[in-house]
Amino acid sequence: MPKNQMILLKRRPTGMPCDEDFERSEQTTPELSEGEALVKTLYLSLDPYMRGIMDQKESYIPSVNLGEVMRGHVVGVVVQSRAATLDPGDHVHGMGGWQAYSVGPASTWRKIDTMLAPLPAWLGPLGLPGWTAHVGLMDLGSPKPGETVVVSSAAGAVGTVAGQLARIAGCRVVGIAGGSDKCRYVVDELGFHACVDYKAPDFDRALAAAVPSGIDINFENVGGSVLDTIWPLMNRHSRLVVSGLIAQYNQTAPCPGPDLTVLLRNRINIRGFIISEHLAQIPNAVQQVGRLLRDGQIKTREDIVDGLDKAPAAFIGMLNGRNFGKLMVRLAEGQ
Amino acid sequence: MPKNQMILLKRRPTGMPCDEDFERSEQTTPELSEGEALVKTLYLSLDPYMRGIMDQKESYIPSVNLGEVMRGHVVGVVVQSRAATLDPGDHVHGMGGWQAYSVGPASTWRKIDTMLAPLPAWLGPLGLPGWTAHVGLMDLGSPKPGETVVVSSAAGAVGTVAGQLARIAGCRVVGIAGGSDKCRYVVDELGFHACVDYKAPDFDRALAAAVPSGIDINFENVGGSVLDTIWPLMNRHSRLVVSGLIAQYNQTAPCPGPDLTVLLRNRINIRGFIISEHLAQIPNAVQQVGRLLRDGQIKTREDIVDGLDKAPAAFIGMLNGRNFGKLMVRLAEGQ
Repeated sequence: MPKNQMILLKRRPTGMPCDEDFERSEQTTPELSEGEALVKTLYLSLDPYMRGIMDQKESYIPSVNLGEVMRGHVVGVVVQSRAATLDPGDHVHGMGGWQAYSVGPASTWRKIDTMLAPLPAWLGPLGLPGWTAHVGLMDLGSPKPGETVVVSSAAGAVGTVAGQLARIAGCRVVGIAGGSDKCRYVVDELGFHACVDYKAPDFDRALAAAVPSGIDINFENVGGSVLDTIWPLMNRHSRLVVSGLIAQYNQTAPCPGPDLTVLLRNRINIRGFIISEHLAQIPNAVQQVGRLLRDGQIKTREDIVDGLDKAPAAFIGMLNGRNFGKLMVRLAEGQ
Repeated sequence: MPKNQMILLKRRPTGMPCDEDFERSEQTTPELSEGEALVKTLYLSLDPYMRGIMDQKESYIPSVNLGEVMRGHVVGVVVQSRAATLDPGDHVHGMGGWQAYSVGPASTWRKIDTMLAPLPAWLGPLGLPGWTAHVGLMDLGSPKPGETVVVSSAAGAVGTVAGQLARIAGCRVVGIAGGSDKCRYVVDELGFHACVDYKAPDFDRALAAAVPSGIDINFENVGGSVLDTIWPLMNRHSRLVVSGLIAQYNQTAPCPGPDLTVLLRNRINIRGFIISEHLAQIPNAVQQVGRLLRDGQIKTREDIVDGLDKAPAAFIGMLNGRNFGKLMVRLAEGQ
């Protein structure tokens, strides 16, 4: 069996994680039992939710124990199989974790069709970020043509898909992103109607000017002071779909939220969701987003880092807003 | 035509209203036009939402203009009618305002059946507060047997009905009220399982102890620091139905709301509503609450003040939590 490289959770971070919270480890991959498969990781997805599972306190998904391999979605290739459903050479998607190889029940992997889209897309628009964008915006946000949709973290993996879906649904879409490069990309490449730089000194004024009819849907990935700026612009009967709160994940004290007087006055609905509770809607999301991707109506961008060793630094960079596109680690060439 | 006594909005309050914000006035009632009726006010309802309509800024219903009669629901008796639908002697419910008589289109009044319940009940469980409680708790909160429901302002006009409806729906109901008299009433008379005094020094601990399985529905009438105490106890998939925010109506600065990290972690739904947007559900609410009232399953209590002149002081007292039961002003004996 091959030697496995792994990255373990060594210490629970206080606030922003650092490299010392992770530990590199190596061990020989165990032999397969009946029904199991050995999968070689090709790409590992890095996502904001991983910050939550490093904490002891229950996040919206279970914590990683100290000394355990960090969890994460991967796409990989089957190397050995003792299950009828998987053959060596099959490309698969699943919770492989931050490691070069994983061994587990074949049933925990789903085969992916690399003819429909290349491997990295299965960690982006056709993976967790794409499902989250589709279910959150389309199923929970219910966009109607002519409505104004604001998407924060607009250049991120979820935001890019959510914003393009809103545009295709006939909405006016305004992104919020950090820096003029990202804002330009969001407007010029992804076709958002406007994008506002939250780091600019006139962010408040610029956002208000970009939504002359107010905001009907806020697809929120950030929270904190970005949401404070969005909130007073929310229209009557508007919807705030909370997909993520990256600005709050490293907070060690409770973070004051939006004034509910505005919610009552405008009959706003705020809803938090997690994609794992909407499994029944995922096949539809894959089908819809897959079609739009193939037709060129949805564009994506990957931010690919080479080598498992780079995962902690890339992850920390993402929490600081330094990635540009769907962040993933390439462990091996696969396709 | 009779002489009319009226209370007008003289000045917009800053923070808590005071008597000087109101003005007494007298004028002869105008002659009826075709299709109009003259209604003599018997009882005037005083409700927290009236604070909002005293402000210039748009509340959740339109503002009262300076010099205009304060708006308010009344029950009254038809004195003269030039409409086929109303006859002298009919008891009616409508937006009569803070005045002894009102003249207006007959279509703005709805006849009430004083055989089903006495007049004051039509301003309480069978009026705006009862409709609000029924639509907010039953239609928007969707209580399931065994769930824990927390109702703030539990001894108030809306809270008493909401809590009793939750009890009848098979929920564990915990009230929050100000002072031990109100708490005792809520438990002993209304059958809540517990009631916690928000003025007591150990309020936080007492509320946590009263909801050992956490909170599934918060029917919120108060906001502010009461909601801050409720919020960390909200369960996974819990619902926060915002019916009112009496603690925030007199705030002159934005009031920080609940930490959305908790909302995301527990997939909570927060919803603000106003009863006037749920007109289709009101007949069902009247029917359901009317039946429960007749069967003695829902009890009510009125806090009746005599004389229109007392309305401003009674209203200010209510905003300070001094009423006990549905607050109304009796202008004349009617039944």
